[in-house]
Amino acid sequence: MKHLRLSILGFGVVGQGLAELLVGKRTLLQQHFDLDVTLVSVANARHGFIYCEKGLDIPTLLALAAQRQPLTNHPGVKHWANALEGLRATGGHILAEATGTNLRDAEPGISHIRAALTQGMHVVTANKGPLALAAQELLALALQHHVQLRMEATVMAGTPVLSTLTEGMAGARLRSVRGILNGTTNYILSAMAAGRDYADVLAEAQAQGYAEADPTADVEGYDALAKTLILAAVGFGHTLKPEQVFRKGITSVSREQMRRAVDEGKRIKLVASLQAVSDFGESPLEARVEPLALPLSDPLARVDGVLNAITFQMDTLSEVTIIGPGAGRLQTGQGLLADLIAVAKTA
Amino acid sequence: MKHLRLSILGFGVVGQGLAELLVGKRTLLQQHFDLDVTLVSVANARHGFIYCEKGLDIPTLLALAAQRQPLTNHPGVKHWANALEGLRATGGHILAEATGTNLRDAEPGISHIRAALTQGMHVVTANKGPLALAAQELLALALQHHVQLRMEATVMAGTPVLSTLTEGMAGARLRSVRGILNGTTNYILSAMAAGRDYADVLAEAQAQGYAEADPTADVEGYDALAKTLILAAVGFGHTLKPEQVFRKGITSVSREQMRRAVDEGKRIKLVASLQAVSDFGESPLEARVEPLALPLSDPLARVDGVLNAITFQMDTLSEVTIIGPGAGRLQTGQGLLADLIAVAKTA
Repeated sequence: MKHLRLSILGFGVVGQGLAELLVGKRTLLQQHFDLDVTLVSVANARHGFIYCEKGLDIPTLLALAAQRQPLTNHPGVKHWANALEGLRATGGHILAEATGTNLRDAEPGISHIRAALTQGMHVVTANKGPLALAAQELLALALQHHVQLRMEATVMAGTPVLSTLTEGMAGARLRSVRGILNGTTNYILSAMAAGRDYADVLAEAQAQGYAEADPTADVEGYDALAKTLILAAVGFGHTLKPEQVFRKGITSVSREQMRRAVDEGKRIKLVASLQAVSDFGESPLEARVEPLALPLSDPLARVDGVLNAITFQMDTLSEVTIIGPGAGRLQTGQGLLADLIAVAKTA
Repeated sequence: MKHLRLSILGFGVVGQGLAELLVGKRTLLQQHFDLDVTLVSVANARHGFIYCEKGLDIPTLLALAAQRQPLTNHPGVKHWANALEGLRATGGHILAEATGTNLRDAEPGISHIRAALTQGMHVVTANKGPLALAAQELLALALQHHVQLRMEATVMAGTPVLSTLTEGMAGARLRSVRGILNGTTNYILSAMAAGRDYADVLAEAQAQGYAEADPTADVEGYDALAKTLILAAVGFGHTLKPEQVFRKGITSVSREQMRRAVDEGKRIKLVASLQAVSDFGESPLEARVEPLALPLSDPLARVDGVLNAITFQMDTLSEVTIIGPGAGRLQTGQGLLADLIAVAKTA
């Protein structure tokens, strides 16, 4: 049996989702993967970092989080106000980085990831910021310290996209990518295609928890843009700056445009795309996030509601499409779990 | 640089496809995967087994195969009439098993695979027979000899299905599978949906090389059945016997049934399915291959022509669908190549 000591930084929806899976999947991990995971530390922004040498009790942590009580109420823990200091002082085999995405400077996630890799910890992450802004730097740092950095959960949650691209299709060369990478906007556009108003649907999506109170990151395409940057790094080995991606959100899509598309047998989708370009100008990649009217013969056109989808054009496989959930507590936790299992094989 | 010595048994379309990729991808394998592959032996049924200590010249082999000349015309080779004896006498790090599928007794592939695993060689295979009939025996044999047995190319060619299931979604539990796993029948059914006759389309598919002169294995559902057996073993850890799968081919689909389905907004597809059943009778799995009329809201309904698709129901991910090519020289070779790269990581 392999014993791994895990730290989870960021204990919101995603961090809790992973923790919940570690409880529910404990027997499966032992029986199928010969793997035993001990959660030794957890941090959130409000209560700081807690550590317990012999392992934290996950049900206790989940109950504290549900009741919005301080994590320090967990019995027998050491406490640091600052997660970075706590992580440096205590370590472990794997960091699961699950703090919120920040596309300005990727903090605090990027500091957590740098610290973990530098001290020889593997990292699995659901945080889009660090990978969107600095994938190549961080992957090089992981290589330098002989540890893995995996990020399945950053694109389409636990739907296997990045591992499928780099491992499942290993040896194939990526030519282009097109994807519906944001569930909130797809939910809104799907409802608009059925005749509803943008404002109504947005309000409903907010009430159901599909959209944030401030929906800018979703509806203006920033979330899809972050995932596009990650795909550029993972799929093409190329770091794009956010401003190198043409970006147009869905707020400009009118009811009239939507009606016309439906009349023409098309569906308007927020499409993220990357295309290798042959004339090497400033960048060898053309990257775009924009609403496009797709014919129904397009495999992305009928992907409705909060579902996500991605189509890869590969040299040896022509076109491969993957459709699946793009968000959610357990769905995103699943991405971290699969990465953790992959790390365990080599750790 | 890791140097691997490879044997390819079976040098038809699939074996040649892998060989072609090894030439075309040589630089990529070296640069991205730090991997150098030397093809040391090849066999086909007609000319037996050839071996060259310092490596065979792949372009020479491909030219001989294209001209239907004996492989023994390759300069400087040792020759065995029997592939099994040749393999035992010469060895290597990896066997790529690419002989034809035989669902009666899985020979000669199963003997090749057993011999390779027993002598400590990793195996990657595109041959459905051995995995359909004896997946669990062979996987146990691989485990016993501390080598890998990988089979991505057996289901949907190089479209990443099996690795996505076991690695990309590691930790998730499979509840059910539904797939369009045979390109020939999907090509025929797609054309019939457009109003054409079964016999006409079959003749055309045969002329274009999509269907065999004897189309039984495809149109009666045996090919899809073999893949269903492999999915049962890989996805559920359960070996089904062929006779435990309900099987109905497409020859009984009438023009009238097809027209009625289209009128109702449905598409008839040859659907392979596996479903975990709760009342444990003879088998914990219900397995079926049969033509079904699917509503257009089903992600499988609009998968047309020779494309294949599979939908997994997973506990943590609800539904994940993968669409891609299901056959072809380079497409199947790609599956073997990805497996070979995965083996190299641990070899």
